[in-house]
Amino acid sequence: MRTQVGIVGAGPAGLLLSHLLHLRGIESVVLERRGREYVENRVRAGVLEQGTTDTLVEAAVGDRLLREGLRHQGIELRYGGAGHRIAFEKLVPGRAITVYGQQEVVKDLIAARLADGGDLRFEVDDVALHALDTDRPYLTFGDERLDCDFVAGCDGFHGVSRPTIPEGVLTEYEREYPFAWLGILARVKPSAEELIYARTDRGFALHSMRSPEISRFYLQVAAGEDVANWPDDRIWAELKARLETVPGFELATGEIFDKAVTPMRSFVAEPMRYGRLYLAGDSAHIVPPTGAKGLNLAVADVRLLTKALARWYGDGSADLLDDYSRACLKRVWRAQHFSWWMTTLLHTFESDDPYGHRLQLSYLDYVTSSDAAAATLAENYVGLPYGSME
Amino acid sequence: MRTQVGIVGAGPAGLLLSHLLHLRGIESVVLERRGREYVENRVRAGVLEQGTTDTLVEAAVGDRLLREGLRHQGIELRYGGAGHRIAFEKLVPGRAITVYGQQEVVKDLIAARLADGGDLRFEVDDVALHALDTDRPYLTFGDERLDCDFVAGCDGFHGVSRPTIPEGVLTEYEREYPFAWLGILARVKPSAEELIYARTDRGFALHSMRSPEISRFYLQVAAGEDVANWPDDRIWAELKARLETVPGFELATGEIFDKAVTPMRSFVAEPMRYGRLYLAGDSAHIVPPTGAKGLNLAVADVRLLTKALARWYGDGSADLLDDYSRACLKRVWRAQHFSWWMTTLLHTFESDDPYGHRLQLSYLDYVTSSDAAAATLAENYVGLPYGSME
Repeated sequence: MRTQVGIVGAGPAGLLLSHLLHLRGIESVVLERRGREYVENRVRAGVLEQGTTDTLVEAAVGDRLLREGLRHQGIELRYGGAGHRIAFEKLVPGRAITVYGQQEVVKDLIAARLADGGDLRFEVDDVALHALDTDRPYLTFGDERLDCDFVAGCDGFHGVSRPTIPEGVLTEYEREYPFAWLGILARVKPSAEELIYARTDRGFALHSMRSPEISRFYLQVAAGEDVANWPDDRIWAELKARLETVPGFELATGEIFDKAVTPMRSFVAEPMRYGRLYLAGDSAHIVPPTGAKGLNLAVADVRLLTKALARWYGDGSADLLDDYSRACLKRVWRAQHFSWWMTTLLHTFESDDPYGHRLQLSYLDYVTSSDAAAATLAENYVGLPYGSME
Repeated sequence: MRTQVGIVGAGPAGLLLSHLLHLRGIESVVLERRGREYVENRVRAGVLEQGTTDTLVEAAVGDRLLREGLRHQGIELRYGGAGHRIAFEKLVPGRAITVYGQQEVVKDLIAARLADGGDLRFEVDDVALHALDTDRPYLTFGDERLDCDFVAGCDGFHGVSRPTIPEGVLTEYEREYPFAWLGILARVKPSAEELIYARTDRGFALHSMRSPEISRFYLQVAAGEDVANWPDDRIWAELKARLETVPGFELATGEIFDKAVTPMRSFVAEPMRYGRLYLAGDSAHIVPPTGAKGLNLAVADVRLLTKALARWYGDGSADLLDDYSRACLKRVWRAQHFSWWMTTLLHTFESDDPYGHRLQLSYLDYVTSSDAAAATLAENYVGLPYGSME
């Protein structure tokens, strides 16, 4: 079997890459270890940057997103007994976020690929990457072999692509945080129209949503916390303690139907290329979810990789392929910093001394009172424009 | 002997307070442990915020400052082989800094107080504060006693005022940094028109100046470093290594006539009042010098204290006196955060892991490429307007 681009992983990165390549007339095959139902229901991020929404709409996979996604023009920072709105419409006019679950993006992309006759292989066993440092790389899976011109490693942090790269090629940068997020989905109308990022002495909490009927919440918990320690009652009590801190705000509760603990980690592997293998999305970099950047970075990577491959197939020039890693990493490091910044701004750290505690509150006071400081949050949160970051 | 306000310390805080009170018709006596020549030649800060300059000019002690001070509309951040200008004229139009040595401010204030018949006592021994929690506080020094309505503690971090406050009244917040600044003055024309804040893997360096003929430099050195380890040749070699990092920049050298090591410390004592004692300037708070905020904070404190005392003497209302500490601390904590921010942005930390190192460079890239981020630096550096911070 032969294709132009062999794609490992049917998450948003791999699927969008396959779709964008198809629009440029480039063939691909997507190999995914899990089943279709699994990837279509895997709960992940849910905040799309302006550029991510634009990309999906331009690629004609944004109809449902535009119909069902919730466009937000601000978020609230809540601390010290008051809420402070970061007003995107004033700070970054014309740019906003869209709340739309990552698994919905995955569903839309799978539907589009299948409608276009795309070759998606689910539940394939033992995917392996070969001859990456030659002009004829290939993938094997089960008893099959897929020859390709290029391989795209879109199989996430725990995937096989990055570990296939020989020792010594990559430099890895990593930081772990001394806490995790307990995330839940609940069948209840959101208690506010916009996201609320709450800093309290009990820890961080996030009020978010997936639809007008489904709320999404996160609680800062200890690293490695067992979800079994968090029966529903305890979750609601803790959410109330961290969110009902401003006059008149009442948290509506409902049936919790998804509950999981997400570790908080920062990670970057450089370069994002080895021979004919190009890494995109979580396979190359991870951010803590505070800044809502993971999915958006994957989309930015895939845009650049599509352009680079289209150039190569168009006129044989490798210039954009050779520049791929550098161009991606500029945005990746901006998002790394922003995600670290949001995380340290809003979480409680047991290691913090009283001076550090006051610094954090002083920073929050500044971000919520200075237009310039609020604009730094806003422009990163809605996503820096593509042209400015490559 | 009796006065209205007894002022401990003839640094810029105590002298400016005495002068501003005089302009409002309020009497004071200033007690200073050191001699006049000593305080007039003590080398300290040299960057005045817009508001500090405005305050001195409005108080008719700004003539020489306007004549000899160097007005700067930007600073340079230098790292990674390139310089990046933070352009105040674009980011904070109408606001700038003035480079003018703190000891020159002191000279101007002493001259003004003496011309107005002000009572300044130098080289007084054993100043002590008494009965601060009564309506009749008094100061003693040598064999004399000075009765007053109020006492202003303007005697710096190591002065007697703060330690006089009984145990348990103040909450103190503190942070020490694992490095210090070696500062020098040299008889040589500055090598650039504006200040250069340089981050290198060898440590931080600052190119500054005091006049068209006198340059001021700082080098990040180990905490507790002995100045004897730094003969002139070593200083120039290290300054060149940290500053001659961009094409075409050559550092001019000259005779070094002042050399000292400044520790880097953050400190705040709250509240800034005990009974009839009001703390102002370094006696209540210290910042590392990176953000050039120490002198400017002292001026902001003294402005508020003058207003509060004038209100009390005007209509007997204590409302501004009662609000003094809260109002000061808002700006103090903003400056604490900014000074910590500038310090961590530009210094090298031995404790930093490779991820932290890349975060720092990513933050510098952001500050030098985003108008919003550059504006956060600029608005803090030139000083947030008085009205916005009280």
